[in-house]
Amino acid sequence: MEVCGLITLTTDFGTKEPYAGVVKGVIYSSNIKARIVDITHEIPPHDIINAAFTLVRAVEHFPEGSVHVAVVDPGVGSDRKSIAVKTDRFYYIGPDNGIFTLVLAHEKNVEIREIVNPPFVLEKISSTFHGRDVFAPCAGCLSAGLSFSHIGPVVRRIMRLTYPKIRQIGDIMEGEIVAVDSFGNLITNVSQSAFRSFLGRRKSEIYFGAERFSKILDRYSQVPEGTPLILFGSSGFLEISMNGGSASSYFMTGTGSQVTIKRV
Amino acid sequence: MEVCGLITLTTDFGTKEPYAGVVKGVIYSSNIKARIVDITHEIPPHDIINAAFTLVRAVEHFPEGSVHVAVVDPGVGSDRKSIAVKTDRFYYIGPDNGIFTLVLAHEKNVEIREIVNPPFVLEKISSTFHGRDVFAPCAGCLSAGLSFSHIGPVVRRIMRLTYPKIRQIGDIMEGEIVAVDSFGNLITNVSQSAFRSFLGRRKSEIYFGAERFSKILDRYSQVPEGTPLILFGSSGFLEISMNGGSASSYFMTGTGSQVTIKRV
Amino acid sequence: MEVCGLITLTTDFGTKEPYAGVVKGVIYSSNIKARIVDITHEIPPHDIINAAFTLVRAVEHFPEGSVHVAVVDPGVGSDRKSIAVKTDRFYYIGPDNGIFTLVLAHEKNVEIREIVNPPFVLEKISSTFHGRDVFAPCAGCLSAGLSFSHIGPVVRRIMRLTYPKIRQIGDIMEGEIVAVDSFGNLITNVSQSAFRSFLGRRKSEIYFGAERFSKILDRYSQVPEGTPLILFGSSGFLEISMNGGSASSYFMTGTGSQVTIKRV
Repeated sequence: MEVCGLITLTTDFGTKEPYAGVVKGVIYSSNIKARIVDITHEIPPHDIINAAFTLVRAVEHFPEGSVHVAVVDPGVGSDRKSIAVKTDRFYYIGPDNGIFTLVLAHEKNVEIREIVNPPFVLEKISSTFHGRDVFAPCAGCLSAGLSFSHIGPVVRRIMRLTYPKIRQIGDIMEGEIVAVDSFGNLITNVSQSAFRSFLGRRKSEIYFGAERFSKILDRYSQVPEGTPLILFGSSGFLEISMNGGSASSYFMTGTGSQVTIKRV
Repeated sequence: MEVCGLITLTTDFGTKEPYAGVVKGVIYSSNIKARIVDITHEIPPHDIINAAFTLVRAVEHFPEGSVHVAVVDPGVGSDRKSIAVKTDRFYYIGPDNGIFTLVLAHEKNVEIREIVNPPFVLEKISSTFHGRDVFAPCAGCLSAGLSFSHIGPVVRRIMRLTYPKIRQIGDIMEGEIVAVDSFGNLITNVSQSAFRSFLGRRKSEIYFGAERFSKILDRYSQVPEGTPLILFGSSGFLEISMNGGSASSYFMTGTGSQVTIKRV
Repeated sequence: MEVCGLITLTTDFGTKEPYAGVVKGVIYSSNIKARIVDITHEIPPHDIINAAFTLVRAVEHFPEGSVHVAVVDPGVGSDRKSIAVKTDRFYYIGPDNGIFTLVLAHEKNVEIREIVNPPFVLEKISSTFHGRDVFAPCAGCLSAGLSFSHIGPVVRRIMRLTYPKIRQIGDIMEGEIVAVDSFGNLITNVSQSAFRSFLGRRKSEIYFGAERFSKILDRYSQVPEGTPLILFGSSGFLEISMNGGSASSYFMTGTGSQVTIKRV
């Protein structure tokens, strides 16, 4: 797969301090023609699970050959590996801490290498900022067309995340809220495919807070303003929303809350 | 008018969730050479009026042929149209909900089309995220040079906003604060041209909170530090400011407050 | 030194209002091929010292020939000069208010010019937004290859900041916290070189809050989770951090707090 020159960034650096800018400076030092897109720099500090869900909702919308860099890295400076991953569609670069668990579940022909060889790493590597010293130069060099196989030795096994999984007992499936967006939409970890295979040809009743939803809708405008509803959101996960308002305010809740699906 | 390859984004997506990044991914999928500028992603959720004022303060500073995308879209999934607008200077892309009312008041040779034809829309259009499925591919294709006339059928009438208008009764004009910036400047809806045509050759007294301003100044440094003043801000609207401080803190107020202009 | 086409922005504009976007619009109007990187737009309003420390932590990671624009400009509209600076490595553009004091301490062959000549300034210059009317067109023109010597007359002396300096009395050195990042790391103004020349061959004891640090570590993982530590951060300044937590929360403190270094 050819690179397309595009690099995305998903980090917990925030936008107040110069860290994200510095990463871009190092990328451009390796490849002045790169195009860089911020997915977000506002992952909650050290929240690898949030980063994993953010990535899975975003990456597929980028052109083939994009290089996706993710840096949420509480173990920086420990003995965790730095890895680069090549698949049928994309490259992924970041710490080996499970951050790519969800995106890699959708990928084929996965090849993983440890990032060790210059110029894919800077000559001097700090023990606190691998975003700058390892992941940025690796992304810059890859996006400029340098060979993936020169990055370092092949890695056979990588860390996998134990993220909030949907639980199923008999006719009950339990999911949870994993993200809340700026509109107050409550995004669950229940994907459309998991929901469909659980339900088969039966119907569902969904319980959240004091509310019971007997129908999954298609659009906000199917309920009156100020009414909560449930639908599959734009990224393919079950979402609790409100027409013209914030479901998060209405239910006074956020990530971690449980949603219960009953097949009837 | 030729496109210049530049696309601007004005949305209420926030920067915490991946929505703005996803829009860019889709744009680059249509036109890998696009240049994308964020005007802001922090329009208050669903606040079309705020978006309209933000656009009118921003768009004229971009090169001719820029494509301005605005997505504040509480009616997504309802029967509101998706529109693309061509003028003498720019292209505008967004929902038909009045968001372009203020910018189009300054434009000539306005041509409007409904966005319906692929590749200006994705093949599969969700009912909750037209920023990704309609406006992004339309912007990408337009900026790559595809013909405006292929977007869809001509639209004769579009929605107009009833935004906070300046009211005039005899020698009194009343405006209001429509934005507060990070410095605490209170930006009104009173444009320099409206003000001048109201005043004619007479003088003004301006009342705000407990304060009376008998003179419109040119620069902050014309008053001592910590003193409020009134001037026409950088975008041509009357602004209540403070030298070396925040007028918003001083007056303990924000958007919606009234400013009264008396001609004497 | 050749320009590389890259422009960085460091401002106190915030990201809610369209100011940063407008600056980019003007830059692209001068040079449609520029590449623009946000270092941050969240410098606390009018905090020149914070901007100076942010710049010194960021600029060296950008390619040679980058144009660094910094706009924290409480004196806009007064008689302070607008300046462009050329050095061995970079260009700097901003108000003459001391904002470049720290970065210029590391630069050689410094040449300074006042920005007065079109097209390096817009034809009409407001008295409240030189970021748009002076610094943006100057950056655009420079990055497009226009000659530095055409910007305006040479300036012999520029403003210098009296930033929080490290104080030294006998065997005691006192520094202070100048930044807190999103992880709660407390970043001091004590650079590695200042620290080393103070210490010579002796050892250090460092006091902060109720804590005494007898050793400067290399990496977070050298202490148990939830334990504070002290190390030289990624930008070469002494930092008080915590493994897996926020030092700022632990010490309940932020910028302005004192750190005391004793050589023993």
